[in-house]
Amino acid sequence: MHSRHRTPRNPEEDPMAGYHDDKDRLLRRLRRVEGQIRGLQRMVDTDTYCIDTLTQVSAATKALQSVALQLLDSHLAHCVHDAIAAGGAEADAKVAEATQAIARLMRA
Amino acid sequence: MHSRHRTPRNPEEDPMAGYHDDKDRLLRRLRRVEGQIRGLQRMVDTDTYCIDTLTQVSAATKALQSVALQLLDSHLAHCVHDAIAAGGAEADAKVAEATQAIARLMRA
Amino acid sequence: MHSRHRTPRNPEEDPMAGYHDDKDRLLRRLRRVEGQIRGLQRMVDTDTYCIDTLTQVSAATKALQSVALQLLDSHLAHCVHDAIAAGGAEADAKVAEATQAIARLMRA
Amino acid sequence: MHSRHRTPRNPEEDPMAGYHDDKDRLLRRLRRVEGQIRGLQRMVDTDTYCIDTLTQVSAATKALQSVALQLLDSHLAHCVHDAIAAGGAEADAKVAEATQAIARLMRA
Repeated sequence: MHSRHRTPRNPEEDPMAGYHDDKDRLLRRLRRVEGQIRGLQRMVDTDTYCIDTLTQVSAATKALQSVALQLLDSHLAHCVHDAIAAGGAEADAKVAEATQAIARLMRA
Repeated sequence: MHSRHRTPRNPEEDPMAGYHDDKDRLLRRLRRVEGQIRGLQRMVDTDTYCIDTLTQVSAATKALQSVALQLLDSHLAHCVHDAIAAGGAEADAKVAEATQAIARLMRA
Repeated sequence: MHSRHRTPRNPEEDPMAGYHDDKDRLLRRLRRVEGQIRGLQRMVDTDTYCIDTLTQVSAATKALQSVALQLLDSHLAHCVHDAIAAGGAEADAKVAEATQAIARLMRA
Repeated sequence: MHSRHRTPRNPEEDPMAGYHDDKDRLLRRLRRVEGQIRGLQRMVDTDTYCIDTLTQVSAATKALQSVALQLLDSHLAHCVHDAIAAGGAEADAKVAEATQAIARLMRA
């Protein structure tokens, strides 16, 4: 089983790691975003007024960013946290990796 | 039938208005985004490494923004264009409405 | 004199075009952003707590985006408006140019 | 002396903490942003074509976001790192605080 908050290289190290409690919340949020995207397809298909469609695109984008923030928060609280607590070079690598992910989100 | 590029108040004015050619391109893009969102659900469900999931969230966000830009471009080229060509107060209202939509997109 | 809302190629066409009334408002906003940036330099220089500095970076970014929206709104209301009212191929070029500027702002 | 990467409450704990090496790089970047903002004032003042001014606004926004990312990276590498290494409730508080700062940056 892959773990979310650790690199998949040593999954045996902590077989219980993973999405835990927030998995349900993430999946619920993603299903809601999926519903928004399908709603957008209906809006385009029925020639809904463009500005209303754009408002729904903004709402879906915002919902996706909330997913990103939840993922990031729990990544910092678990993966980065554990790497730092364990000490060593892994900690720096985890911080650099997280910063790069944040940069991708800000430029998205 | 509602028209995208005109306010729905006078759909008779131009019954042919709507998404035209770019409708297919918009629907294809939105179906791809829907696939990305479903992929994200699988990633969370199978405890994919969080940073990889975040990379996919960034990609889906970027794809949604391309949808927004396509909608906006054709809104300016049709709806705002026609309101200005027709003259009158409608033109100013359309420009203000478009700016507000852009503001929502930038803050999303 | 260069005009903001028209391409500089034919400035004689409308020698009065330009920033008009909103010039003062734009300049006031930009001076406030400049003050925020200088405030940031002091914060870094005096080792202000990083999170407080980041909050100020967010505020300055938001202020810059308001400048962008004001510029864009008046660009649509004047330059794009006039190109469309004049008719011809210039109108399409102006809309495409505006969309590209919006795309740069969204990706900034 | 305030420290950037630690809360100012216990500055004695690590009197050497602060911006260190990256202080110069941050200040250089912020001075460049200040120059861009002053350049924008000249562009508005001389009625530069609006789209060119918008391009410069995008560049300044991007430069500010690079400052944000550098601040965030070193905040995670020092402040959050040290809080986690020290253990205790402070670690969770630091992670929550960092996530909130990232949320503000993404919504800026």
